Amino acid sequence: MSEQRIQRRLAAILAADVVGYSRLMERDEASTLASLKARRKDVFEPLVAKHQGRVFKEIGDALLVEFGSAVNAVACAADLQQAMAATNAALPEEQQMVVRIGVNLGDVMIEGDDLYGDGVNIAARLEGLAEPGGVAISDSVHQHVRGRIGVDFIDRGKHEVKNIERPVHVWAWSPGKSQPSSAAGKASAIGDILENAVTFVV
Amino acid sequence: MSEQRIQRRLAAILAADVVGYSRLMERDEASTLASLKARRKDVFEPLVAKHQGRVFKEIGDALLVEFGSAVNAVACAADLQQAMAATNAALPEEQQMVVRIGVNLGDVMIEGDDLYGDGVNIAARLEGLAEPGGVAISDSVHQHVRGRIGVDFIDRGKHEVKNIERPVHVWAWSPGKSQPSSAAGKASAIGDILENAVTFVV
Repeated sequence: MSEQRIQRRLAAILAADVVGYSRLMERDEASTLASLKARRKDVFEPLVAKHQGRVFKEIGDALLVEFGSAVNAVACAADLQQAMAATNAALPEEQQMVVRIGVNLGDVMIEGDDLYGDGVNIAARLEGLAEPGGVAISDSVHQHVRGRIGVDFIDRGKHEVKNIERPVHVWAWSPGKSQPSSAAGKASAIGDILENAVTFVV
Repeated sequence: MSEQRIQRRLAAILAADVVGYSRLMERDEASTLASLKARRKDVFEPLVAKHQGRVFKEIGDALLVEFGSAVNAVACAADLQQAMAATNAALPEEQQMVVRIGVNLGDVMIEGDDLYGDGVNIAARLEGLAEPGGVAISDSVHQHVRGRIGVDFIDRGKHEVKNIERPVHVWAWSPGKSQPSSAAGKASAIGDILENAVTFVV
């Protein structure tokens, strides 16, 4: 029962990642970095603070944020995508930046300010299953937010995801009209990085 | 979106209640009360502290305890029932005291030190579905504890519970050999009290 000695807490984990970031960087490194920094400062920081989140990891263009409430995490995800869409609408196409967001709920392991475990990894995998500009959440998150925020998620069924034993039941939402799911199922770079980190740490 | 202004947090809620408490009180009020106090002090307080729980409500023979981790809450529930069984084994039958325990996970509403909402009410309903001396947990709790504590829960299927819209998927465990489920489905007095409280508060 060495598990007993591990510090754990229930947390809602939000994972966000920029769509086509490598391609953007290849095209124009300086302006892509400037744009990423501006979005973090003007969009992410104020909305994460408003919903009482805490950024616990930044990996390149990816962010991981912890919330004490699933309702707060999903409300934040929806606000973020609406704010990103509004910001993009005012810019020429080459300056637009689109993110995917995943939200999961887990009994995660704590080490200092960092969080580990399936609860975090599945958030990153959900992010990879989201539409560009959209949000994908797990069924356990959906059970806690259903009817509690002004956003309706669509049942996307169960998905096998890399290195997670059981299929993940996914619910999805995008602002405005929903998009075809051609992008769903893409490999999640942050998911791979996290799992490497976990095999190293645990 | 007035929901946004409500303070919420993810919590695992443990509800415990004495089996046949009214009958015990009727038979011998003074010794039943003394026995309840002794169990709280000698069994509940040390084990709740060990697993980092916080008692947030006492209603007669019922206790509601908050945990920041589902793993801690279920480990505490299993320890409590094992300790209660060991205490009972050393006593004559008329001094024995048996409890039911339910554990649920919820994005609960906070008001001062108190917690409210479906997440709490379902914990009380699960307690009513537990075997005497056993533990019943919701599927959302089970997803977070599966394989993480040295206790295997049995799938008891979905149950309709009073004043909760969707059926609750229940998993159950009892120390030692499992008992027939004749007591499952009894009305939960604490559930009724809590729901009255909730209609008053919300």
